[in-house]
Amino acid sequence: MSLIVQKFGGTSVADLERIRNVAKRVIKTYDQGNDVVVILSAMAGITDNLLGMAQGVSETPDKRELDVLLATGEQTTSALLAMILKSMDYPAQSLLGHQAEVVTDHCFGNARIVDIRTDRINELIGNRNIVVIAGFQGCDPQGNITTLGRGGSDTSAVAIAAALKADVCEIYTDVDGIYTADPNICDKARKLNAISYDEMLNMASLGAKVLQIRSVGFAKKYNIPVHVRSSFSEEEGTMVVNEDSGMERLVVSGVTHDKNQARITLKKVPDQPGVAAKIFTPIADSGTVVDMIIQNTRAGGQTDLTFTVPRASFQTALAIEKRIAKEIGAEDVFGDESIAKVSVIGVGMKDHSGVASKMFATLAAENINIILISTSEIRISCIIEEKYTELAVRVLHTAFGLDTE
Amino acid sequence: MSLIVQKFGGTSVADLERIRNVAKRVIKTYDQGNDVVVILSAMAGITDNLLGMAQGVSETPDKRELDVLLATGEQTTSALLAMILKSMDYPAQSLLGHQAEVVTDHCFGNARIVDIRTDRINELIGNRNIVVIAGFQGCDPQGNITTLGRGGSDTSAVAIAAALKADVCEIYTDVDGIYTADPNICDKARKLNAISYDEMLNMASLGAKVLQIRSVGFAKKYNIPVHVRSSFSEEEGTMVVNEDSGMERLVVSGVTHDKNQARITLKKVPDQPGVAAKIFTPIADSGTVVDMIIQNTRAGGQTDLTFTVPRASFQTALAIEKRIAKEIGAEDVFGDESIAKVSVIGVGMKDHSGVASKMFATLAAENINIILISTSEIRISCIIEEKYTELAVRVLHTAFGLDTE
Repeated sequence: MSLIVQKFGGTSVADLERIRNVAKRVIKTYDQGNDVVVILSAMAGITDNLLGMAQGVSETPDKRELDVLLATGEQTTSALLAMILKSMDYPAQSLLGHQAEVVTDHCFGNARIVDIRTDRINELIGNRNIVVIAGFQGCDPQGNITTLGRGGSDTSAVAIAAALKADVCEIYTDVDGIYTADPNICDKARKLNAISYDEMLNMASLGAKVLQIRSVGFAKKYNIPVHVRSSFSEEEGTMVVNEDSGMERLVVSGVTHDKNQARITLKKVPDQPGVAAKIFTPIADSGTVVDMIIQNTRAGGQTDLTFTVPRASFQTALAIEKRIAKEIGAEDVFGDESIAKVSVIGVGMKDHSGVASKMFATLAAENINIILISTSEIRISCIIEEKYTELAVRVLHTAFGLDTE
Repeated sequence: MSLIVQKFGGTSVADLERIRNVAKRVIKTYDQGNDVVVILSAMAGITDNLLGMAQGVSETPDKRELDVLLATGEQTTSALLAMILKSMDYPAQSLLGHQAEVVTDHCFGNARIVDIRTDRINELIGNRNIVVIAGFQGCDPQGNITTLGRGGSDTSAVAIAAALKADVCEIYTDVDGIYTADPNICDKARKLNAISYDEMLNMASLGAKVLQIRSVGFAKKYNIPVHVRSSFSEEEGTMVVNEDSGMERLVVSGVTHDKNQARITLKKVPDQPGVAAKIFTPIADSGTVVDMIIQNTRAGGQTDLTFTVPRASFQTALAIEKRIAKEIGAEDVFGDESIAKVSVIGVGMKDHSGVASKMFATLAAENINIILISTSEIRISCIIEEKYTELAVRVLHTAFGLDTE
């Protein structure tokens, strides 16, 4: 008998019929003798509807009140699932964020969980209740409703699993696991049975949008096994686990790509102390996150400086840099939106040399020019021209032995 | 400077545009230097939509979970109004039932308020905040969400006004006050400037569905002046006040009618002890409320017994009585759904004799047969054939001097 936390995303609870299917799955686990705590998202599309309503009030709706509004989405699905379970004669009870005592900081719209008091949940479990908790929401110490940001239900699930010392946190979603590459562009991509927290952290931030990045950090910190699987099939998905947990260590576990990229280059920047701060502070102040930065020193005390930003921030960032370039006396500023980032990720890289050179050689063999490179302990990313994205993913997938037979 | 509680019903908050109008009205009161606490209903139709969703789960959805679901309606409007007020640079904060500490009993779906702890509301008011409270909802001492039953936002408003010792509780609705009769059938009906709590209690229960009956009881108990008025005009509405508060005392303040009536007659019931219990206990057990009862003693130890029930309960009640009639040896059972109740109401009746006889004479003059009569200190009700309802209301309205000139 285990304690299992099951989280169902928006597409899994999109209507009453699907919530009934969720109930069946929950009951199956419960009837096997397990204790079950369920975390739900809002029905698919509802959070966007509510956001739209708020935007009808103001472009920048009050954040405290927006959280009160958004919290109704998960409240609705939680009440309905508990209702369905009870109508099938299973003992169940819904808990909202504040009832489950998911205590967060005051940061409305993007709150962080600081504590989960598990007394009430444990008491309900102790009486063999199925506990249905509204995801995405919590409350600050003053009892104000807070929300955890986009995808926050994943974080709710993992945090509650950690607080309850659950045996596993199952994340039910509309994909059946984590793949070695996006199956839409790489038909030889295959599902991974297991992946490490660190690999997943790199996957998620690079565009494999299956799990909220913050939830993976939580899972790693508390060593909670996370099982990512489909709510529309019985098949096993992918386990996200500690890398020491006996999983097969591939050199490279996956190839990801991200087209949401743009680059900006400043030419002939005077190479003086304080110049980098002048270039990047206004960008940061505008709320734009700079990803990769590369600097080439030229002769004559001048450098060329290139960096990447999310494509949505490109025009803003370019306008800022045109102003800055004049101030600091750079020769020219230009940008490019037709770029993409491809990355290879794997904990095995730590023990294997030659991954980087193999990646560069593979791209070179296809005449794909590498514009920028960045690396971490378990990841190598290259910026290339956008038109080569799919080709690059496919050849790298083959080169690192990830193709299905 | 006063403390004013303003409650807005579902039609007043039916969409963003109308909630903006509510904001304007609230601001006007606030800018006059008053402290304002706002109580909101859900958008018109939303509660029925949510009920429909729950009925899709089960004909008898779990009551605890239904309350969790229904509470989202008022949560939505409260968040939106607070958001609008803040976008207009007014200090505002929404509070849900549990945040406003509206403590109720455990009776999900029809909970009674047992306590309102006003610390948080008072602190917000003290800082000149406009406090926006979700009506209709509270929480039990264990923190479970409860709702107060249909029209419960009126009760929320009056109870919060009482707890805060507010100067007035304004109920904004889609009618502009309390009328001497239903203007739809009596074109000489006129709006009353004032009406006593007791008259209103009789009006509300007899079909003038403007205020939830329970809220009027609350207002009377704590002597809170209630101002019923339209949210779509600036005109004064009707004050519901203590009858000693200097209001003009009309002999009759209003004529009401109720077509939601049916009667059942048992003929030749053996007149023995315990027979009434045998007749009415099964009806009560079926959840049906019996309104009027009349018993005519015949010769020979037999009586005829007639009573009225809401029309929706007629078939159930008739089936029950057919069974009971056999058990107790009554000769016959028959019923009639084509009846209506007309009533005249007025605190002035206490001091004036002849109101009943004038009512009977007025109906007789039109050849309207009176089937049943019931009276209270300030009300006389007659059951008549349904087809005479409108005629009866009009002639009584004229006879008691209520017509507009």
